[in-house]
Amino acid sequence: MSIDTLQLRRIAIDTYHENVAYMHRECGVYRAEGFQALSKIQISLNGIKILAVLNVVDDASIVQSGELGLSEQAFQQFNCVEGSMVTVNHAEPPKSMDAVRRKINGERLDRADFDSITDDIVESRYSKMEIAAFLVATGQNSLDRDELLYLTRAMLQSGDRIHWDEPLVADKHCIGGIPGNRTSMLVVPIVAAHGMLIPKTSSRAITSPAGTADTMEMLCEVNLSPTQLHDIVRRERGCLAWGGTARLAPVDDMLIAVERPLGIDSQGQMVASILSKKLAAGSTHLLVDIPVGPSAKVRQMRQALALRKLFEFVGDRLNLHLEVMITDGRQPIGRGIGPALEARDVMLVLQNDPEAPADLRQKALQLAGRIIEFDPDVRGGQGYAIARDILESGRACAKMNEIIQAQGPKPVDFSPGSLCHEVAAKSDGIVTEIDNLQMAKIARMAGAPMMKRAGVDLLKKLGSPVKKGEILYRIHAEFPADFNFAQNLAMQNDGYTLGSNAELLKPLITF
Amino acid sequence: MSIDTLQLRRIAIDTYHENVAYMHRECGVYRAEGFQALSKIQISLNGIKILAVLNVVDDASIVQSGELGLSEQAFQQFNCVEGSMVTVNHAEPPKSMDAVRRKINGERLDRADFDSITDDIVESRYSKMEIAAFLVATGQNSLDRDELLYLTRAMLQSGDRIHWDEPLVADKHCIGGIPGNRTSMLVVPIVAAHGMLIPKTSSRAITSPAGTADTMEMLCEVNLSPTQLHDIVRRERGCLAWGGTARLAPVDDMLIAVERPLGIDSQGQMVASILSKKLAAGSTHLLVDIPVGPSAKVRQMRQALALRKLFEFVGDRLNLHLEVMITDGRQPIGRGIGPALEARDVMLVLQNDPEAPADLRQKALQLAGRIIEFDPDVRGGQGYAIARDILESGRACAKMNEIIQAQGPKPVDFSPGSLCHEVAAKSDGIVTEIDNLQMAKIARMAGAPMMKRAGVDLLKKLGSPVKKGEILYRIHAEFPADFNFAQNLAMQNDGYTLGSNAELLKPLITF
Repeated sequence: MSIDTLQLRRIAIDTYHENVAYMHRECGVYRAEGFQALSKIQISLNGIKILAVLNVVDDASIVQSGELGLSEQAFQQFNCVEGSMVTVNHAEPPKSMDAVRRKINGERLDRADFDSITDDIVESRYSKMEIAAFLVATGQNSLDRDELLYLTRAMLQSGDRIHWDEPLVADKHCIGGIPGNRTSMLVVPIVAAHGMLIPKTSSRAITSPAGTADTMEMLCEVNLSPTQLHDIVRRERGCLAWGGTARLAPVDDMLIAVERPLGIDSQGQMVASILSKKLAAGSTHLLVDIPVGPSAKVRQMRQALALRKLFEFVGDRLNLHLEVMITDGRQPIGRGIGPALEARDVMLVLQNDPEAPADLRQKALQLAGRIIEFDPDVRGGQGYAIARDILESGRACAKMNEIIQAQGPKPVDFSPGSLCHEVAAKSDGIVTEIDNLQMAKIARMAGAPMMKRAGVDLLKKLGSPVKKGEILYRIHAEFPADFNFAQNLAMQNDGYTLGSNAELLKPLITF
Repeated sequence: MSIDTLQLRRIAIDTYHENVAYMHRECGVYRAEGFQALSKIQISLNGIKILAVLNVVDDASIVQSGELGLSEQAFQQFNCVEGSMVTVNHAEPPKSMDAVRRKINGERLDRADFDSITDDIVESRYSKMEIAAFLVATGQNSLDRDELLYLTRAMLQSGDRIHWDEPLVADKHCIGGIPGNRTSMLVVPIVAAHGMLIPKTSSRAITSPAGTADTMEMLCEVNLSPTQLHDIVRRERGCLAWGGTARLAPVDDMLIAVERPLGIDSQGQMVASILSKKLAAGSTHLLVDIPVGPSAKVRQMRQALALRKLFEFVGDRLNLHLEVMITDGRQPIGRGIGPALEARDVMLVLQNDPEAPADLRQKALQLAGRIIEFDPDVRGGQGYAIARDILESGRACAKMNEIIQAQGPKPVDFSPGSLCHEVAAKSDGIVTEIDNLQMAKIARMAGAPMMKRAGVDLLKKLGSPVKKGEILYRIHAEFPADFNFAQNLAMQNDGYTLGSNAELLKPLITF
């Protein structure tokens, strides 16, 4: 028989974005259908159809013959009770894989192709490996600008879209790769204090030692319901929340869930990812920060310019007012790397403390100034001065405190992990290079971002003269195992290069 | 803590080639390590390290806090008892993914790259999605001939290799796509009767309505242990066994397990797959059959020629005596499609029955003749006559019976499924086209190859004149659901085109 019914059973196994179905090896349906372990099956009940990967079970205490077990997320998709009778058959491969195969063969895809691909992805018809095939086929330079526009639009349409009903909804986004770069936590209070709407949602760190959400979480709650978020933004003009709960451009999340572990990314996919998310979040004006440096994501000025054009091309066609700022990505921003240390730096800047890291302050003011100039009432070139005035007057700090109170404050304690190792200069010289990637890796090894007080605290930055034995940075950890890992890593490569003034990395951009 | 230990528990879930580990959500290690569902973890015990995908469990009856559950295949890799203490930490991504990323970026890979990729794949360090990325990145024309040679060699070296200790070990392989094409079951007895060693192992059908192993299984056992296979080949000079048990070019199987569900294939990967498997099986001489036709895998003569060159290039450099035969792939071979019906056709040819399908007999003789000419004692051009003599004298049939007896005979019954639907011509005309893909699909819908007596029996072939209402073919099934599916499919598109003699598809090759 090619179709048959089984009794639904909920299996308390969390398989994340991947639906898994469990069937007993002795089950008649399994035998008759000629299913294989890992084959994809379609499960139907009351018109709802879901796809799942099949696991074959030999233990009747997990699932019995005549039952179909479903992992948590899969079960929830049916809105039903255990014991319901479901129909099971072979899943047809998603139709839009034809388009992916055409892309693999070097063809150009049209708008309808991208729409059907994102439809199939959002309906969970793609397996992880099919998504991987799509990503590799559309990676690097294999999408032209129009295809990228189609993809972005299709990703945007795949989920919900927030409407703020205001003419100007500002946002900023950095393409990442620079440790300590917590400018959003300064830009949001400055811009919101100016009165512009800036409902900032951020991700948690996945490959970096801290995301804005991880760092903000040192100060207050970041996991807000859509209603809470809405209320706070209306009242405070800004927020700094985790963006994980809303169903905005869900295809983007599903692509990232494959992209990240594969370690593949392409400029095209980055543009589609960022712009679809921002548009879904209701942004009308976006400032994109592209840091350039030898250990940044973008290493050459010409790459940064090409990326800027891509952002502009797609943004313009999707009716987003978009500006790109190419920034200095030669070294980490600020001093701290890791949630607690970065939160400390941010608060020092907001409090106008003389100890505040000047580079973080300067960059945040530049970015905030550009965003403030989105305001039609602000004269071109005046944004920076307005931003600086808001910061120096204490209004930014007050706004930050209001946002913290609104989101749900936490006790303030930025003390770093008690295990501390100091990394010293091996010779005299001036700091000519700091490797962003290595510093991020050391901070992660030390436990960041899971261990919020773990990380790296930089005492010397590019251009600093140092004597042999002088401390370059401190590693902080909470657990001995992490601590040892991080120390060993720093021993192999401390991430710093010392030399003469002539060897000092020149900024690739004038900032 | 970044490293910790858990007690091993066997979970009776079959996850096929993919290792799955189960950890309770409340487990300290899960929380401390910051694992995520679906992240890859490394599990170590007594120097054995395996990688697994993590599933998070909320049901302590499946796995408890402090325990690490492992799916069947994963558990077996440890050779240990339940309750052993294992160490768990984050899996590093496989190092060779760097090479895959370089390939995605358009670079050329060298021999060491392919060696490290196949090493990582065979050690299960690649997830399905990483394999998909590799396949797409190396698909189509993105491998040059030298890269293809490196890949083939690396795949060959990834597993065991059989040595027959004879100067001439013959084999044949068809690239597939033509229903009913069971020539191996004729070629093997003819060639073995000539005295040449031809230890033929075949696959079961995955996307086709019957593989040679499925069809041979109508006559005898095909699931032989390596020892049995060896003994039979020594005694009979040939066999027709299922190739699934040996560990020959295991990377090939792991690639195919991803390639098939994705529906992607490339000529390069096909060449690497076939040649690595044949060399691992100990073949010294190989005849490759490339059918060409509008609904065959290869649709143009120039594609067939390009593929031939690829086979020759790699075969020559791996010291395999290789010849390619480009054959007529315009329509199915023989009459039956499906294991029972194809076994019937084969036996009719072996028994020199006047009802035997002439095209199957003719093609098998051509192929067998070419293989016999691998024999240095046979004069060029004499192979066909020798093959025909072996067949007509009954020596081929006798050899087939010996092989059947050796492998373990089954009761002979080729009767097709009792549910039968006759598909009739809708008009007068001659058969000008038969769609291989559609006929295969109808046979599969009818239940083949799982239901051995299901399939399609063709009464008319290309060039046959038919009257309106005359029967073109019969659909046979064993179960009503299958039967309805197949009938509906044939109703939508019966796969036949009727027209005038002038419209008859001309063979793309002279055969």
